[in-house]
Amino acid sequence: MPQGSKKAGQQSIYFENPPVITNWASIVGPMEGQGPYGREFDWVLEDYLFGEQSWEKAEAKMLRETVKLVARKAQLSLDQVEVFLAGDLLNQIISANFAARELKIPFLGLYGACSTMAEGLALGAMLIDGGFYQRLAVGVTSHHHTAERQFRYPTEQGAQRLPSSQWTVTGSGCLIMRRDGAGPRVTAATVGKVVDLGQSDVNDMGAAMAPAAADTVIAHFRDTGRGPDYYDLIITGDLGKYGLALMASVCQKMGCCLGQRISDCGVLIYDPSQDVHAGGSGCGCSAVMLCGPLLDRMQAREYNRILLVGTGALMSTTSSLQGETIPCIAHAVAIENEPGEG
Amino acid sequence: MPQGSKKAGQQSIYFENPPVITNWASIVGPMEGQGPYGREFDWVLEDYLFGEQSWEKAEAKMLRETVKLVARKAQLSLDQVEVFLAGDLLNQIISANFAARELKIPFLGLYGACSTMAEGLALGAMLIDGGFYQRLAVGVTSHHHTAERQFRYPTEQGAQRLPSSQWTVTGSGCLIMRRDGAGPRVTAATVGKVVDLGQSDVNDMGAAMAPAAADTVIAHFRDTGRGPDYYDLIITGDLGKYGLALMASVCQKMGCCLGQRISDCGVLIYDPSQDVHAGGSGCGCSAVMLCGPLLDRMQAREYNRILLVGTGALMSTTSSLQGETIPCIAHAVAIENEPGEG
Repeated sequence: MPQGSKKAGQQSIYFENPPVITNWASIVGPMEGQGPYGREFDWVLEDYLFGEQSWEKAEAKMLRETVKLVARKAQLSLDQVEVFLAGDLLNQIISANFAARELKIPFLGLYGACSTMAEGLALGAMLIDGGFYQRLAVGVTSHHHTAERQFRYPTEQGAQRLPSSQWTVTGSGCLIMRRDGAGPRVTAATVGKVVDLGQSDVNDMGAAMAPAAADTVIAHFRDTGRGPDYYDLIITGDLGKYGLALMASVCQKMGCCLGQRISDCGVLIYDPSQDVHAGGSGCGCSAVMLCGPLLDRMQAREYNRILLVGTGALMSTTSSLQGETIPCIAHAVAIENEPGEG
Repeated sequence: MPQGSKKAGQQSIYFENPPVITNWASIVGPMEGQGPYGREFDWVLEDYLFGEQSWEKAEAKMLRETVKLVARKAQLSLDQVEVFLAGDLLNQIISANFAARELKIPFLGLYGACSTMAEGLALGAMLIDGGFYQRLAVGVTSHHHTAERQFRYPTEQGAQRLPSSQWTVTGSGCLIMRRDGAGPRVTAATVGKVVDLGQSDVNDMGAAMAPAAADTVIAHFRDTGRGPDYYDLIITGDLGKYGLALMASVCQKMGCCLGQRISDCGVLIYDPSQDVHAGGSGCGCSAVMLCGPLLDRMQAREYNRILLVGTGALMSTTSSLQGETIPCIAHAVAIENEPGEG
């Protein structure tokens, strides 16, 4: 790590005083609650409406309640949270906007599709390490039914799904990041470029996103001088099983062997018996896996260094209908335990 | 200004080494070219398609070309621009995503509706002053026809417009911000909270946004100890003529008299004879007014201190159809000339 410099190579930054993730919380839907990590989320919803009159309102409530939950864990009142970085998949990020309306925390809206948690982590860490804030919240949400009807088909229609299709996670993850405190730290981040190799099949998003993930992972290693062995786990957001294999193979071809330390939140979150085809997706996927099982395991020192690679497909229904291919992005964030701690 | 502290009050921040806006560029559509500031934009398009096959593709091209233009002005190659903060109004911010795909600059997508330029300025200044980047670009775009058909009616339908309706600006503004150099500097920023007083009329967005603008302006003065007289101009993004009057009246009622120094980019950009009813709107509105007439006038020292108050209405067609009111936000950014300069 170059002393005194916060920028490394073309795309990466180091944090001089790595911001601390002191608290995290997650709320998930029924399907996610039945998955292999179901017991590790804070709150499993019994249904998709969460007492609201529409799925969209339920999605906003999910995010709002996750923020309240993480603030309680952090023993902070909402007005002690200085700024809220948040986003979701819905048009005009209404879930985040409506959550922010109730929370009354100064709000910066992000759109990075399913990479939003990694984007928020990278930006949040810059705002803390830059000295602008002492404590902030990063929150992300997605909902299976709102995403399906916005991007694909009304779920009532029961359209057949392809083997490469992924299942949008119903879930909301939120974390508190502070300048000081105990917990895993954000030590470095690599901001991704938009990569589009011409994939236009919206039923195979993992294949579309895999080259962007590989591009960012390789940039991260090039910029930081770290190799895959540096990390206990390199975990992508929502490539799904085919996309993950494809990313590993692209990296391999570019001379970077990721070995056995890679996995994907979309592969982990459901059991193969759950009929989700290629795995989970949606920006809630990496958000709940991070703000639950992954950070819990870091706290337990099962992992000491992870690289979260948030992956996002940046198309809209309009761009797809106009014949465009799918531009994708990935942001990588290094989260590490202090060597001496615990 | 408190020495050594970057945070002021609840919502505001100061920049220790205020980042410099060294270059700016704007591209506008035909209507904006015919307005009172038409000659002051870099490029006035002859039509709305810009050589593309759809308005959406034209919008992405507009942003891409504005970034190339500002990079040329700054004598930077695109790969010397370290990061690109951008957003637009379209679902999943496709204009920004597709522009970023061609530009190949590391990309952070934002969504703040029509407040996006102010959001990008505030965030960009934090990333520069925080020591993470030496030079970055902030770009925003909107297009009359893509916004109309996404948010309202197909323009071919010729739906009647209400007197309180605003006209979405076709235009793209982009600026280069650096740690060093000559130009106006970003000295402070106030990050807004989401405010919703229950307005649900999407044909009167100015009225919906006015309370959010007033909330942020008052927070800015409260946090910084500055008063309206500190600025040569306090300029909101796109309140339009009714919204601007409403904001001034809300401030007045809260004991803050803004006097004659306030204006609104949406009020300025068109001539009343252009049949735009309450004025311009869209995130391109404040972006092109800033990245053209306003920064030009700062360079000419006609203004030395301006407060840009970007205003955004955070609803979607889905939230409106589900009976929700319009949550709004405003971010304020102080831009100042060095006292000794020029």
